[in-house]
Amino acid sequence: MPVNHSIHHRAGLDEVACRETLIRRYQHVRKFTERLCQPLLTEDYVIQAMPDVSPPKWHLAHTSWFFETFILAPASPGYRSPHPSYAYLFNSYYVAAGERHCRPKRGLLSRPPVEEVYRYRDCVDQHMTAFLDSLDGEKLERWSPVVELGLHHEQQHQELLLTDLKYNFGCNPLRPAYVKSDMPMPAPAVAPLRWTEFPEAIYWIGHGGHGFAFDNESPRHRCFVEPFELASRLITNGEYLAFISDGGYERPELWLSMGWDTVQREGWQAPLYWERCDGNWWMMTLGGMRPVREAEPVCHVSYYEADAFARWADARLPTEAEWEVAAMNLPVSGNFVEQQTFHPVPISRNDTALSVEQIYGDVWEWTQSHYSPYPGYIAAPGALGEYNGKFMANQFVLRGGSCATSLSHIRPTYRNFFPADARWQFTGIRLARTSGPA
Amino acid sequence: MPVNHSIHHRAGLDEVACRETLIRRYQHVRKFTERLCQPLLTEDYVIQAMPDVSPPKWHLAHTSWFFETFILAPASPGYRSPHPSYAYLFNSYYVAAGERHCRPKRGLLSRPPVEEVYRYRDCVDQHMTAFLDSLDGEKLERWSPVVELGLHHEQQHQELLLTDLKYNFGCNPLRPAYVKSDMPMPAPAVAPLRWTEFPEAIYWIGHGGHGFAFDNESPRHRCFVEPFELASRLITNGEYLAFISDGGYERPELWLSMGWDTVQREGWQAPLYWERCDGNWWMMTLGGMRPVREAEPVCHVSYYEADAFARWADARLPTEAEWEVAAMNLPVSGNFVEQQTFHPVPISRNDTALSVEQIYGDVWEWTQSHYSPYPGYIAAPGALGEYNGKFMANQFVLRGGSCATSLSHIRPTYRNFFPADARWQFTGIRLARTSGPA
Amino acid sequence: MPVNHSIHHRAGLDEVACRETLIRRYQHVRKFTERLCQPLLTEDYVIQAMPDVSPPKWHLAHTSWFFETFILAPASPGYRSPHPSYAYLFNSYYVAAGERHCRPKRGLLSRPPVEEVYRYRDCVDQHMTAFLDSLDGEKLERWSPVVELGLHHEQQHQELLLTDLKYNFGCNPLRPAYVKSDMPMPAPAVAPLRWTEFPEAIYWIGHGGHGFAFDNESPRHRCFVEPFELASRLITNGEYLAFISDGGYERPELWLSMGWDTVQREGWQAPLYWERCDGNWWMMTLGGMRPVREAEPVCHVSYYEADAFARWADARLPTEAEWEVAAMNLPVSGNFVEQQTFHPVPISRNDTALSVEQIYGDVWEWTQSHYSPYPGYIAAPGALGEYNGKFMANQFVLRGGSCATSLSHIRPTYRNFFPADARWQFTGIRLARTSGPA
Amino acid sequence: MPVNHSIHHRAGLDEVACRETLIRRYQHVRKFTERLCQPLLTEDYVIQAMPDVSPPKWHLAHTSWFFETFILAPASPGYRSPHPSYAYLFNSYYVAAGERHCRPKRGLLSRPPVEEVYRYRDCVDQHMTAFLDSLDGEKLERWSPVVELGLHHEQQHQELLLTDLKYNFGCNPLRPAYVKSDMPMPAPAVAPLRWTEFPEAIYWIGHGGHGFAFDNESPRHRCFVEPFELASRLITNGEYLAFISDGGYERPELWLSMGWDTVQREGWQAPLYWERCDGNWWMMTLGGMRPVREAEPVCHVSYYEADAFARWADARLPTEAEWEVAAMNLPVSGNFVEQQTFHPVPISRNDTALSVEQIYGDVWEWTQSHYSPYPGYIAAPGALGEYNGKFMANQFVLRGGSCATSLSHIRPTYRNFFPADARWQFTGIRLARTSGPA
Repeated sequence: MPVNHSIHHRAGLDEVACRETLIRRYQHVRKFTERLCQPLLTEDYVIQAMPDVSPPKWHLAHTSWFFETFILAPASPGYRSPHPSYAYLFNSYYVAAGERHCRPKRGLLSRPPVEEVYRYRDCVDQHMTAFLDSLDGEKLERWSPVVELGLHHEQQHQELLLTDLKYNFGCNPLRPAYVKSDMPMPAPAVAPLRWTEFPEAIYWIGHGGHGFAFDNESPRHRCFVEPFELASRLITNGEYLAFISDGGYERPELWLSMGWDTVQREGWQAPLYWERCDGNWWMMTLGGMRPVREAEPVCHVSYYEADAFARWADARLPTEAEWEVAAMNLPVSGNFVEQQTFHPVPISRNDTALSVEQIYGDVWEWTQSHYSPYPGYIAAPGALGEYNGKFMANQFVLRGGSCATSLSHIRPTYRNFFPADARWQFTGIRLARTSGPA
Repeated sequence: MPVNHSIHHRAGLDEVACRETLIRRYQHVRKFTERLCQPLLTEDYVIQAMPDVSPPKWHLAHTSWFFETFILAPASPGYRSPHPSYAYLFNSYYVAAGERHCRPKRGLLSRPPVEEVYRYRDCVDQHMTAFLDSLDGEKLERWSPVVELGLHHEQQHQELLLTDLKYNFGCNPLRPAYVKSDMPMPAPAVAPLRWTEFPEAIYWIGHGGHGFAFDNESPRHRCFVEPFELASRLITNGEYLAFISDGGYERPELWLSMGWDTVQREGWQAPLYWERCDGNWWMMTLGGMRPVREAEPVCHVSYYEADAFARWADARLPTEAEWEVAAMNLPVSGNFVEQQTFHPVPISRNDTALSVEQIYGDVWEWTQSHYSPYPGYIAAPGALGEYNGKFMANQFVLRGGSCATSLSHIRPTYRNFFPADARWQFTGIRLARTSGPA
Repeated sequence: MPVNHSIHHRAGLDEVACRETLIRRYQHVRKFTERLCQPLLTEDYVIQAMPDVSPPKWHLAHTSWFFETFILAPASPGYRSPHPSYAYLFNSYYVAAGERHCRPKRGLLSRPPVEEVYRYRDCVDQHMTAFLDSLDGEKLERWSPVVELGLHHEQQHQELLLTDLKYNFGCNPLRPAYVKSDMPMPAPAVAPLRWTEFPEAIYWIGHGGHGFAFDNESPRHRCFVEPFELASRLITNGEYLAFISDGGYERPELWLSMGWDTVQREGWQAPLYWERCDGNWWMMTLGGMRPVREAEPVCHVSYYEADAFARWADARLPTEAEWEVAAMNLPVSGNFVEQQTFHPVPISRNDTALSVEQIYGDVWEWTQSHYSPYPGYIAAPGALGEYNGKFMANQFVLRGGSCATSLSHIRPTYRNFFPADARWQFTGIRLARTSGPA
Repeated sequence: MPVNHSIHHRAGLDEVACRETLIRRYQHVRKFTERLCQPLLTEDYVIQAMPDVSPPKWHLAHTSWFFETFILAPASPGYRSPHPSYAYLFNSYYVAAGERHCRPKRGLLSRPPVEEVYRYRDCVDQHMTAFLDSLDGEKLERWSPVVELGLHHEQQHQELLLTDLKYNFGCNPLRPAYVKSDMPMPAPAVAPLRWTEFPEAIYWIGHGGHGFAFDNESPRHRCFVEPFELASRLITNGEYLAFISDGGYERPELWLSMGWDTVQREGWQAPLYWERCDGNWWMMTLGGMRPVREAEPVCHVSYYEADAFARWADARLPTEAEWEVAAMNLPVSGNFVEQQTFHPVPISRNDTALSVEQIYGDVWEWTQSHYSPYPGYIAAPGALGEYNGKFMANQFVLRGGSCATSLSHIRPTYRNFFPADARWQFTGIRLARTSGPA
């Protein structure tokens, strides 16, 4: 749920400009979802290779259902859904919005066909555009935050669409590619990891200014942070290979207890998508199979693996407060989905201008913080209050966005969260350590 | 595995006629598979709603792989598979034919796309036709039984294609229809069930004559059968409703122990595909949802339900020997897939000419016989020996074919088999009872 | 359920003698159960190492509950159970006798303590003895078959008590022993396996004479048996080791499909209780761990293993009719529980007087026959009708008794049955083969 | 792992006094374990009703193994374990200490018998006493913290012994009692819940002074706490009944997502051990079944239930820092195991002297804090480093001890932790809320 700063306050624009901006942004985000689907065949829209992922078709319909349910139905008098049964099929987890199809069975539905889902999107878009066009005054103020929420919601599903697709393709013995992969240039050697110090202080954490933010980023509050150091860049495949070579996956003393259990049960020996072929490590990417390149940030590791790596490296993962302290004054730029690399990239030479690099984009960075409410947090009433708050148990916070995230979707205060064993997102490792006494 | 009677012995034809018959049959059967797929959308080809069913795409490819693996590869010099990876993807359970994709994951593959699978079929068909054209003398005698086997194999998959599709559609809350269903005429009242007596004797059981048969139908052997009576027709929905109304699903004394456990665990209260709506029973058919009609044979019941019904009715299921004794002299005709009803039909007035009706077609009839080898049975060597023999544990024999079976596929000696809890085939009930002393 | 031949008909004795025989037998069987428990510590009575086994305490109480429920309660006016709650705790599977504690949780009950269970037995025994003493005329005729059933029931549980205890002890890393094991004398070499021929005929199968039998052994009926040969003795550990050495557990072509799945899933590489230590095979016995001796009959194999061994040996398992044909005229003697070997023993020299040896005792012999009703079989009404009939699916018949069976419990027509993957009974292998044309 | 303040520093005693104190404490704690077992029958020592609980026999042996492994073996030259196999049987989760028996199978071991476990304890105690008697100088300083750790470890297992026993007895349909329960006096009405305010500040959190503490309570560090209010007492059964009556278990909007899933899957409708009989709520206690009393603190609720109750009550659970701020200056006294109530008790009139009551004893209080390392936390090297640190994922912190905790075991900084769905400990609810702006 967004905090209550509607878009037209942000920029101080007048109502007309505000409405037009909203419409343009609506059209841009919605189109981008479809653009991401262009390389897909009809068959690719249907499947779901594990319960955590959803078929592309489902993402396309669910995001449309979101606008229909939370805007058109309550706000647009006389709107009738062309497919009332979709409320059951395409509700994800909003209990207050009614019964829903069970998640692990999303891939068992061949109908509605893809074509009909696109027609459904069109229908919702037409109604939404008309609705947005009609907004003014109090209604604009009332509904634009919900539209914003719907668009950020759709951007989250754009990222999932890519990671889910990667997982689906990764389970296919044919290892299909989503995009044509250029043979990348040899990467330059990566500079040694440096440590940047941050002093102890009471810091303000969380979202407090203008612009959109999810409810879990609020309230802005104070936090005492002991002095710490943060690694200057992400951990690379090369560094992670050293961990593997040093028996990282065979040494229980490096692991959390639940992590070690998971390693044993799942037989993990490397990050997700890595495969050993003829003595070399290869990896599945959205561009298909290719050799693991040492200079790239390591990716598709679970919290357990990130934590074990950190322990092996005599360091630890940062807390989310530490991460935010380091990130709050850095420019929000990096390797986002707009770059269309669809994979984390090696740090480039001219990135070394900042004390802390790669903080945005490339990979979501695991923090050691469990996902908990900020002091004074209150979830919104109704179904939209289920957006974030009800997941505050047994998840860890990740920060900074990835190569599958939209630049316009990320902020320094953004809190992503996943269970400790999740690996199918673009998740990586940044180290921290507690400063010793001088 | 077929017993060793090649097609040209059967009719005493000369070699040319025999070859032409084989080619015509090959083309007919292969075409029919594709005809059954005509109503499908691309999306329908991909999904698998439970491990026991397979995606239509998989059936199309697997049956082609069968001809490629067991005929083209060994018999057609110089043949190269256009897709060597398909050997892994589309092998079902032939361990001796190499590693294979695991069954419950067949629905997780969007690639190869449907179009490519059809191209693969075309390629196999072209090579097969050329190969068949070239057959003569010893080679004709050597390979025509394997071709026959492949065609019967494909006919089995045609039946599965329909039952799997029905299951997939039945899991979709939209309940799509495979064919347009005409509103059926009101059925005439069904005549009361009569009992036909058969005397005690040593009977010859199993396949012994000319023509194709699977290896599990041999050797032909003697069997002493005590005197028994067989019901004159199949059990109807109306009769099964009486069983339900009488607490059939709530009375453990009517059930086998494993059956009762299954009823409890699965929450069964009626045959598969039956749903209670506003006080009436409806059923999912290949023509979509429609009310349960009392005159139709009951269908989609497990062995456990058939057995419990029989106990409730003070009768029992026939043994497979008893069934064969009754069927061996009856004409092989009935409601087969060629009729395109895709559902069992009520017995018609003019069916009453025979002492035992509906013995072929409509529904597979559960027998009380576990699936075991006939005396002297020996499985063929090699991968084709896995066709039948290795399943001879914990399955029950069914007889007579169903509305999804091809007429040209069935015989009096045909032994189908499924586990006792399977319900997604067109399976129904015929009663028997042991004759008392005069 | 027994067929209806009461004990005093059997021997033609007068009523007094009949009653006294019944009482003596009652006391003998009941005492024997307790004698089998003498080596146990209190702790041993409580545990249950898998759902299929029951704690000794449970067996002691359940067999008493059986007499209480099926005799004292209905037949002894004024009898009041000292522990009405035991009806819930110690009913096994008699649904018609009321609700019951769930089987896998029998080992979670520390109360009632062992001492109280023995007091319960005493109480039942006192009432039963008084009741038996009072029986005459019609009442004796009415109740003696049920008493007989209760005693055979108790003898079955005596066998289970030993096999369950062995399983419990086998799961304990300390590998405790039930009895002190003498170092056995070196076994003489086992004579080569011979084949005994049996001609084709219509044979009478099943129980038809006087004396007790379970209901599943009836009705006596005719069965046509094709000519066959039966192995002269049981398969030995030495022969089974040859199967293992020849890759028996690694060759899928030797196995039934479900058997191969089980081998893979369970990681079977030898019979249950075998362990490889320093290059030698050892086995857990009721006398503790000791080396595998080649001359002994192989034991603790599943149906799947027996079937695979037979296929490897170019033979097959006998049908239960074949087994009965061979056994019907042989003397019922062998290595039974009275010998207190608690393990199968090597065939001795002077055993070679018979054409088929070791047919009774030592190990239950797997047959290839699924457990099905005989023609005309009807289960008894009421709870006792659940004794046998409701298990007639997905089980295989075993014949001949084992070293844990009482001599007074076995008959040529006795049908034991277990699922194909069960290994914790004393189960072994006898081969058969179909006679070829002369 | 304890922080490094050995016992003789604490009190400034000289070496002799320190050693004698240590020996007295050793003997006292060890004896108390056995005293807790006095009401048990031999059978009660053996069972394990779910994987999370352990048999009493196991607790007795494991705590002895702890002293043997971490003190006698490394520190007492020439010590030989009388039972080397116990290292396998009674290691809990110390991977660095070697292989171990798997946890869910602890209840499958009848051997070693109870008597032998007591002999093992005696043997360890004799060696430990001799060893402690011999300690002086550097060795005393080196080993006394490990002895202290062993004793606190044993006190933790004393608490588990009671809670596990309660669970085992609670699963027995006979509902046995551990102690005789006096009919309690009618409880006085509980005073209304008040809120105590705490101001915002940087607080010092964690253990920093003398005396024993586990490693997870360190380092002492600063924490900024926003202003908050804490409830003056625990939530009562009466208040929890109001939550139930108001549909607490049927309203998903009150629950965390994983909590709601758990409620559905497990069918929770009340705290663990509550049963509805004839319209009244009863509960299983260590004194057997008795009616739920409204004045008592609610107990045996999971984190999910505590969190849902708090949301229903327009409040929240405290963070562990808030709890510690409130508790740090309160006297450590309350209803501990020494009182032998074995159950939380209603607040008494004269308890109202403090602003916050019942903070120690009665029930462990769920906090909203996930269990995470304090800033600068480093686990000890070796097996003892596995004591706490490796569990820092997916658990919640509980504070204050319970009616099953020893008074000498608890501290303001003590951090207990359990998964969010655990209910078999004595766990209850204290509310907090964020102070609004004045």
